[in-house]
Amino acid sequence: MNIEKIVLEQERKVTLTAYLQETGGRFAYIEKRPGILIIPGGGYQYCSEREADPPAMAFLKAGFQVFILNYSIGKDARWPNPLNDYEAAMEQIQTKAEEWRIYKDKIAVLGFSAGGHLAASAATMAQHRPAAAILGYAVTLGDMVKNCEETAPDVVSAVDRRTCPCFVFATRNDSVVPIENSLTFITALAKNGVSFETHIYAYGPHGFSTGDTSVEYKDSHLCSRAPKWTEDSIAWLRDVLGDFGDKTMTEPACPRHVTGDYEDYLSLECTLGYLRRCQNAAEAMEPFMKWLEENRQQVADSIGPAAGEITRREGMEGFFLMADNRTLREVLGNTDLSREEQEKLKEALEKIENPL
Amino acid sequence: MNIEKIVLEQERKVTLTAYLQETGGRFAYIEKRPGILIIPGGGYQYCSEREADPPAMAFLKAGFQVFILNYSIGKDARWPNPLNDYEAAMEQIQTKAEEWRIYKDKIAVLGFSAGGHLAASAATMAQHRPAAAILGYAVTLGDMVKNCEETAPDVVSAVDRRTCPCFVFATRNDSVVPIENSLTFITALAKNGVSFETHIYAYGPHGFSTGDTSVEYKDSHLCSRAPKWTEDSIAWLRDVLGDFGDKTMTEPACPRHVTGDYEDYLSLECTLGYLRRCQNAAEAMEPFMKWLEENRQQVADSIGPAAGEITRREGMEGFFLMADNRTLREVLGNTDLSREEQEKLKEALEKIENPL
Amino acid sequence: MNIEKIVLEQERKVTLTAYLQETGGRFAYIEKRPGILIIPGGGYQYCSEREADPPAMAFLKAGFQVFILNYSIGKDARWPNPLNDYEAAMEQIQTKAEEWRIYKDKIAVLGFSAGGHLAASAATMAQHRPAAAILGYAVTLGDMVKNCEETAPDVVSAVDRRTCPCFVFATRNDSVVPIENSLTFITALAKNGVSFETHIYAYGPHGFSTGDTSVEYKDSHLCSRAPKWTEDSIAWLRDVLGDFGDKTMTEPACPRHVTGDYEDYLSLECTLGYLRRCQNAAEAMEPFMKWLEENRQQVADSIGPAAGEITRREGMEGFFLMADNRTLREVLGNTDLSREEQEKLKEALEKIENPL
Amino acid sequence: MNIEKIVLEQERKVTLTAYLQETGGRFAYIEKRPGILIIPGGGYQYCSEREADPPAMAFLKAGFQVFILNYSIGKDARWPNPLNDYEAAMEQIQTKAEEWRIYKDKIAVLGFSAGGHLAASAATMAQHRPAAAILGYAVTLGDMVKNCEETAPDVVSAVDRRTCPCFVFATRNDSVVPIENSLTFITALAKNGVSFETHIYAYGPHGFSTGDTSVEYKDSHLCSRAPKWTEDSIAWLRDVLGDFGDKTMTEPACPRHVTGDYEDYLSLECTLGYLRRCQNAAEAMEPFMKWLEENRQQVADSIGPAAGEITRREGMEGFFLMADNRTLREVLGNTDLSREEQEKLKEALEKIENPL
Repeated sequence: MNIEKIVLEQERKVTLTAYLQETGGRFAYIEKRPGILIIPGGGYQYCSEREADPPAMAFLKAGFQVFILNYSIGKDARWPNPLNDYEAAMEQIQTKAEEWRIYKDKIAVLGFSAGGHLAASAATMAQHRPAAAILGYAVTLGDMVKNCEETAPDVVSAVDRRTCPCFVFATRNDSVVPIENSLTFITALAKNGVSFETHIYAYGPHGFSTGDTSVEYKDSHLCSRAPKWTEDSIAWLRDVLGDFGDKTMTEPACPRHVTGDYEDYLSLECTLGYLRRCQNAAEAMEPFMKWLEENRQQVADSIGPAAGEITRREGMEGFFLMADNRTLREVLGNTDLSREEQEKLKEALEKIENPL
Repeated sequence: MNIEKIVLEQERKVTLTAYLQETGGRFAYIEKRPGILIIPGGGYQYCSEREADPPAMAFLKAGFQVFILNYSIGKDARWPNPLNDYEAAMEQIQTKAEEWRIYKDKIAVLGFSAGGHLAASAATMAQHRPAAAILGYAVTLGDMVKNCEETAPDVVSAVDRRTCPCFVFATRNDSVVPIENSLTFITALAKNGVSFETHIYAYGPHGFSTGDTSVEYKDSHLCSRAPKWTEDSIAWLRDVLGDFGDKTMTEPACPRHVTGDYEDYLSLECTLGYLRRCQNAAEAMEPFMKWLEENRQQVADSIGPAAGEITRREGMEGFFLMADNRTLREVLGNTDLSREEQEKLKEALEKIENPL
Repeated sequence: MNIEKIVLEQERKVTLTAYLQETGGRFAYIEKRPGILIIPGGGYQYCSEREADPPAMAFLKAGFQVFILNYSIGKDARWPNPLNDYEAAMEQIQTKAEEWRIYKDKIAVLGFSAGGHLAASAATMAQHRPAAAILGYAVTLGDMVKNCEETAPDVVSAVDRRTCPCFVFATRNDSVVPIENSLTFITALAKNGVSFETHIYAYGPHGFSTGDTSVEYKDSHLCSRAPKWTEDSIAWLRDVLGDFGDKTMTEPACPRHVTGDYEDYLSLECTLGYLRRCQNAAEAMEPFMKWLEENRQQVADSIGPAAGEITRREGMEGFFLMADNRTLREVLGNTDLSREEQEKLKEALEKIENPL
Repeated sequence: MNIEKIVLEQERKVTLTAYLQETGGRFAYIEKRPGILIIPGGGYQYCSEREADPPAMAFLKAGFQVFILNYSIGKDARWPNPLNDYEAAMEQIQTKAEEWRIYKDKIAVLGFSAGGHLAASAATMAQHRPAAAILGYAVTLGDMVKNCEETAPDVVSAVDRRTCPCFVFATRNDSVVPIENSLTFITALAKNGVSFETHIYAYGPHGFSTGDTSVEYKDSHLCSRAPKWTEDSIAWLRDVLGDFGDKTMTEPACPRHVTGDYEDYLSLECTLGYLRRCQNAAEAMEPFMKWLEENRQQVADSIGPAAGEITRREGMEGFFLMADNRTLREVLGNTDLSREEQEKLKEALEKIENPL
């Protein structure tokens, strides 16, 4: 491994440290690597070493190129300085992507506490968006972040469907960053159809980093599940970015959005309920909807016994109660509608812009 | 192990199945066991066997006495029938607690989907409250539960500070019970100071039960973290109910409320911010507040570098920004205030009723 | 779940307890289940309840039908009484396999301590052989088992290539059953080409069963890895017996023998070294051996850089040093020998009886 | 983190790479760190990068200072060159221990394949012995290592009671380094009373390193348990070296030897059987042995029901059968022999040299 340390901004002491692993040679199947940019916490007053190297090692072991950002703090933390620091870091990584053997479109961000605020800003507001964000006991609420840095923005209200997939973890009894910071953020992700995973552990002190004995504060009261976030977030990144294949990365198992309802064009991944209410789709959907009316019981039964029961009792309305949240692909998957008809429907939908 | 099956209500076919393990004998250190009542899902239309025995085995292995409730379904599911079934089950368990070797005050409830709705009702509305609740992809919202059973109530609005600690898990892309059901519920728990843990896994089908290959539907797309809920919830129950000791259970590591602010009487577990604003506490707090004014920087520094920095810059207001969410015990723990003074303060607070 | 308790022998109080889970219905993809017979320990003086139900629950959760054998003890333990008890149990299970929904050829055995001796006897000497055996801190040495029951046999010397795959676990500092019992047994398995997995944990008391807090003796000094044997042995059983498929079990990932050298007929799974020395195979191997002589460097390089280096230096002898332990399939997999030639070789070998 | 690369021997291209983490500062409770020296494999023909950085990251995350040794290979690998390289590396680390913030007596070694041979040589023959050794699919047998490097010695025969505690892992079907290499080595450890832990996984290719997807060869058939060796070996190192305390390391939970029978002086950690047969101890043991004769049944019953039964039937001989492998501390712990007598016995034993 090599370490490169780059000064991004002299005066504000902004630096990017790159931990770069080999590719090729004995790593015959690895041509490039995904990347992750770590943003330590410290209340915008300092950058905590406890939240820099220790988590870095977990992602290095997993095969990532890892970067650590030391951003503007103290009086230099006036917004948008920290966000600009992030942009500079990502620009640097993008520029050097070939030299550093990185997949440009597979760079995640990991931020803790105030660094989690900056990572969440990156996920919601930046020019250079990360492909995924891991937020550890992150500050997200405007009211709250003002306690650290008065000019820093609320990020919850900045969430929209373009926000990248997020992995959010925290402890429920955090007495520095109240759990509402994580809860309101994931609620906003849910509302905007963004994919996410979240683990809120029963108890543990703010700033537990990896939760290893080598970073924990002595006598800290940390629940046994909390240190699992590193391996869980790595598995999640593999789901969202793909895993190592033969000189490539495999297809992600988890899409960016929970359904097609939040994508630019309609598709079989849209929910039945959404397509039913979407005027642009009415014409394309018409033959299928007619077919469905006659075959609803068959479909409902294949969805599950509860759907079957309710549909039997309450007809089409009962059917929609249980099927509207399903993607059209799920609904079709259970029918005997001909392949041909299904393909036709798929093609028709994919031409229609999503009138979000 | 013995199995007892008890008919709680003949006509509606309500039954309680008890899986009862030995105590004493070779289990020399076990006099009684904690219990857990499992409430399977099925949209209030049926009770799923997939969500009965398989999870039961996990809790039996962990040493629990396990009960399975088959409650009123279909046309019999009119509210409050299912809740009455739960009450009858808990009454039965309480009555037989001595015979069945159960700690009466350590009976948890575990519910899936619509059974999760019933478990959440138990946690928020029942006469016989469980000591802890595990809710798996549970229905909680009134609008949503009406899709299954029209008369069933919203449980989110029923959450208050008397709600028991909860462990909430689900998959983010559940197309049967939207994730908002879990999110609004934990948000309500947070607002009411109730202890909880939550795991929302990136993806997986509704009704995955334990996620074992022996219960999963074929070809289901379940993320690798999801099956961990069983061992994680068992570890959490040990935190909340205590673990096996020598013919007793150890003290729980996790209290019912996140701080003392939600308990009946004030204490050192209340947050500084709460006590500062609590008029009843003004007199008891006065000497400490005076001391604090002179020693704020010392305390702030010991809280952490960010707190130190901000306090230095912004005085008492800066201090409160960083310290108000901390319990008085945490704040005191870092001071040189005499043991005597601390004890006096503690005693004074514990006499004051919490004016919630 | 249902429990059936069957008396196998009245006078010696030999019983078989069956824990039987449902199949079909909501478990739509499960037609039958694999089984496991648990044989508790107790120095052939008693049968420990601590080693009966608690491990049973782990395998029930994993989808198995589980059986517990209470065998002859004390003065009744005279050999071959305990082994006869085992045979009677397996006969019972085989006879009822249809009724109990069990795959007849997928019944494993799990024994602890003296019960591990009986399980190892089953694996090596019984009429009704198990498909796999899990041995926990098992007694295997004749000298040692005599401490418990004078007439009981040594099982290490009974291991041969027909012994079933074994999962062997113990703690290194067991002061009741010295670790040599496990070590000599796995050494015998290795010598006979039998598949196995073994975990010897650094420390822990004899008789720790599942290692859960609900079975451990108070203040016992058990290392953190030890309780993992349950989930690891379940994963291993899936490798050896197959996992749940659609109304069937999938193909095992792990064969019964480490290579084809221990099977009844030769095959591509035999090692190159074995086939080279096997006179029956000389004719079939001749064309391939000629080809190999000319292509050894190509094959060696594809095996790995060390093999390449050594072959380059030391010619054919160097090649064999690195390739003799490889299966012919592995060696072929790396060559440009035509498909046709490979198929011919395969067919020729499979007709030749293994002259073991 | 800093990286330092030191050339230990110019001509043979022997280098030591040091990955050095911070101490003090935000890591307030860490004054020094334990160390681990990684020795990659490669058949003494090369040093594999796949077995250098990837495992390094696991131990860095766990808080270790990590070193990678590139030792003499190819024609330079003539013995004792590689062992000398190891000695030079350890000397370097010892010399710089203060500067590099390392606990001199807590430096482990980790070797893979041929590097495992070198690590095992370090554990059994070196001047600078490691405090613990982790051996991954290591070559240990003289016959076998000659395939790689003719002059390299057998290490199994070099094991004695001064060998450090070992963690040995491998896959059962390794076709490059047969499993006998690991089996004979742990058998030698057992014979010499050395503490160890071992995990032999059912199947997986030679050279799987961490087993992560970022190091595995494509399509490799690796069983699901194999990648767990990293976290298990880290937990084991904490047991053997101690864990991070407050500016110190905690006491190890696992001693170097399985009992006191292998230490320089006698103690209560010696087994009853050993002390009974040890002539030097006869006088010191005499009062206790007399007491024991009269109280054997009490002691046997407290040891366990099997011991009780057998002792009842067979008197003192039966008692010894079950108690001889127990340490005197274990035997005493269960008696009502006075504290005073116990202390006297302890003091007497600790003055007696072990006549090994």
